[in-house]
Amino acid sequence: MPSHAPSSVPADELGTLCLTMAKRAKAASTVLAQAPTTAKNRWLLASARALESRKDELLAANAKDIAAAPSFGLNAAAIDRLTLNPSRIASAAEGLRQVATLPDPVGEVREERQRPNGLQVKKVGVPLGVVFFIYESRPNVTVDAAALCIKSGNAVILRGGKEAIHSNTALHRLLSDELKRCELPSEAAQLVPTPDRQAVSHLLSMSEYIDLAIPRGGKSLIQRVASAAKMPVLKHFDGVCHVYVDAAADLEVAERIVVNAKCSRPATCNAAECLLVHAALADTFLPRIGNALLAKGVELRGCAETRKRVPAARLATEDDYRTEYLDLVLSVKVVANLDEAVSQIGTFGSHHTDAIITRDTRAAEEFTRRVDSSAVMVNASTRFNDGFELGLGAEIGISTDRFHARGPCGLRELTTYKYVVTGNGQVRE
Amino acid sequence: MPSHAPSSVPADELGTLCLTMAKRAKAASTVLAQAPTTAKNRWLLASARALESRKDELLAANAKDIAAAPSFGLNAAAIDRLTLNPSRIASAAEGLRQVATLPDPVGEVREERQRPNGLQVKKVGVPLGVVFFIYESRPNVTVDAAALCIKSGNAVILRGGKEAIHSNTALHRLLSDELKRCELPSEAAQLVPTPDRQAVSHLLSMSEYIDLAIPRGGKSLIQRVASAAKMPVLKHFDGVCHVYVDAAADLEVAERIVVNAKCSRPATCNAAECLLVHAALADTFLPRIGNALLAKGVELRGCAETRKRVPAARLATEDDYRTEYLDLVLSVKVVANLDEAVSQIGTFGSHHTDAIITRDTRAAEEFTRRVDSSAVMVNASTRFNDGFELGLGAEIGISTDRFHARGPCGLRELTTYKYVVTGNGQVRE
Repeated sequence: MPSHAPSSVPADELGTLCLTMAKRAKAASTVLAQAPTTAKNRWLLASARALESRKDELLAANAKDIAAAPSFGLNAAAIDRLTLNPSRIASAAEGLRQVATLPDPVGEVREERQRPNGLQVKKVGVPLGVVFFIYESRPNVTVDAAALCIKSGNAVILRGGKEAIHSNTALHRLLSDELKRCELPSEAAQLVPTPDRQAVSHLLSMSEYIDLAIPRGGKSLIQRVASAAKMPVLKHFDGVCHVYVDAAADLEVAERIVVNAKCSRPATCNAAECLLVHAALADTFLPRIGNALLAKGVELRGCAETRKRVPAARLATEDDYRTEYLDLVLSVKVVANLDEAVSQIGTFGSHHTDAIITRDTRAAEEFTRRVDSSAVMVNASTRFNDGFELGLGAEIGISTDRFHARGPCGLRELTTYKYVVTGNGQVRE
Repeated sequence: MPSHAPSSVPADELGTLCLTMAKRAKAASTVLAQAPTTAKNRWLLASARALESRKDELLAANAKDIAAAPSFGLNAAAIDRLTLNPSRIASAAEGLRQVATLPDPVGEVREERQRPNGLQVKKVGVPLGVVFFIYESRPNVTVDAAALCIKSGNAVILRGGKEAIHSNTALHRLLSDELKRCELPSEAAQLVPTPDRQAVSHLLSMSEYIDLAIPRGGKSLIQRVASAAKMPVLKHFDGVCHVYVDAAADLEVAERIVVNAKCSRPATCNAAECLLVHAALADTFLPRIGNALLAKGVELRGCAETRKRVPAARLATEDDYRTEYLDLVLSVKVVANLDEAVSQIGTFGSHHTDAIITRDTRAAEEFTRRVDSSAVMVNASTRFNDGFELGLGAEIGISTDRFHARGPCGLRELTTYKYVVTGNGQVRE
């Protein structure tokens, strides 16, 4: 079965199309909110099997996107992200099976207490409603996002990158077919059928039907979504993450963590972008870490004190210290003490992930108390700020906002709660 | 010491004044976020003492507001709400002492787990930052709101009603004096010094400095705040609360709860506005509850089936079923079954508080699962949807939103969290 080409929708019909999608999503969400865990898990497992059995159809759709990729000006790395292959399809299927094993946050009793008058008070998890998920080129994200939204009882409207539309259309059709087969509302997962950017603006205005927008991608995408959305947005703009090597650091631990935080996957939001070194260690640690990083091909941009110890570093500008390089580049600064480190992180960081390396528990305690980031690490790599690594099972994204959820957001963060209060005739004075 | 008169600020200086307030609040919030529990409690207790020792000054300021009240067109009920007297001052002091006994949500470890790689993951409470609290005429609210915000580590900008400005100025000066005396930042609690509405618009645009807006008052105030705010808003528009009397209800329990839910304080958001009665009970329960409510002076507006059993009821319009009367008026409707009750509540309710009266646990389970309100009651009055009654200690308001917090919001709901992750050198593959 061939993929449908992305339909171009006349401007005057686009608003109606989006409104229809949003209303259908809301209607589907009220049915899905009541769906038993077993039905949602059955859908996850059936979709995993379908990904494998319908592999050829998915690869054929993906081939169309790959063929069209040069016309979008995609470079080799972007084409790689866009590519589906049997191993990536298997990994998407594995992701679905993992989500099936996670506890259902809907109906979960989160707190329970008995009041002196005998009232039994429970706080019970319920879905948010409808999620609008806006992302870029990796087609696997279509599957991951739909899995997390639906397992948490939310309907989802998916809006992938225009360059992935054939792949996403094929993946969405598969997920939707399995929803029907599992007797769940097929409109619980919808894909915006047109690459028109105006569709995103329309949907972001529909706060009556859509409860949450989640943008995942570059900073400019996230800024566009955040400024246009009339509903709450779960997001982080960027990850200007720091590693502070304290005077009491174990230098071997410090070297291992700095190299890992910078080099293991430099394009991720939890990679380190700035190294802060206590002045007492400037002579010993800086030459050592400088060599280790240069050997890994990292470009260093440092303060004057850094450059005395690592001459290969070029002079950092103030802008460098605010920059999320997403590449093998690292800012370096020598700080007088923990106080200056905390202040540098507060001024130049993005409240995403910051780490201290120290054997001094008092310093660790002060750093974790004063640094106000979604995750604060002690003697561990910044790269652990991730839903799976922190024990949430999986994540739909990382939030640096203060409202609702902070840090990695998994199934529970896609829900809210209600109070269920049971009495035997109590009235209030 | 006389209260200062509300200063009138020239329009071109108002924006600067508001920006200065917002920046000072942000700066104070970073200090307050680190304040120990003992310091915050010391301030609460010292303020309670000061309310009592400076009673005369407060009563004198309040007398000015009372004298000016007729010029604002306030009726007797509004003047009563505006009035301070020794007993109300004592009750405000008692409120401060109670908040001092509540656990501090800042630094509270909410979850803790060990990962297979040895990482210790903690979720730790931290303040939201700066709260902008907008309210109407009761001066005691100034004290309550400041207490909850500051105990939860947040700076607060208070904006009371123009008719209470002398009372609020005196109360705020007292709270601020005690902040200084307790070596906490006095700008952690600021009062907007002008009655100009434009000040509210300015502050609601300053999402860089203000993290949350909380409007408390009538629906039009809340709508104005919600539509202008650039930051998140914690709110409910109205409370169209239902009591559904199921076929399996204990009629004595049902009567007691319906009378309490409607009559105990009809002007509150958790008072019942609509009674739904299962058709099987129309002949027995309706005449009984009709008489009980009429004896309490309640005006009834019912469907045709209701009027057959309670001729004193006038015919309800569709609008009546959407109305929050906030008065001794009740809509009544006979429904065929639980399904129709749930559907009526979903269509006409406001997701605030809805109750079922039944001895049938299956019906109770279905009702609590399907009714999507901030609190769902079984055999208990809707009036229990309140922070103190549900065990939160106190509340700053009730939310019917789905994001961040739902139902009564106490100290914990005025905070967010961060992950604190401790390792011994772990890096990520």
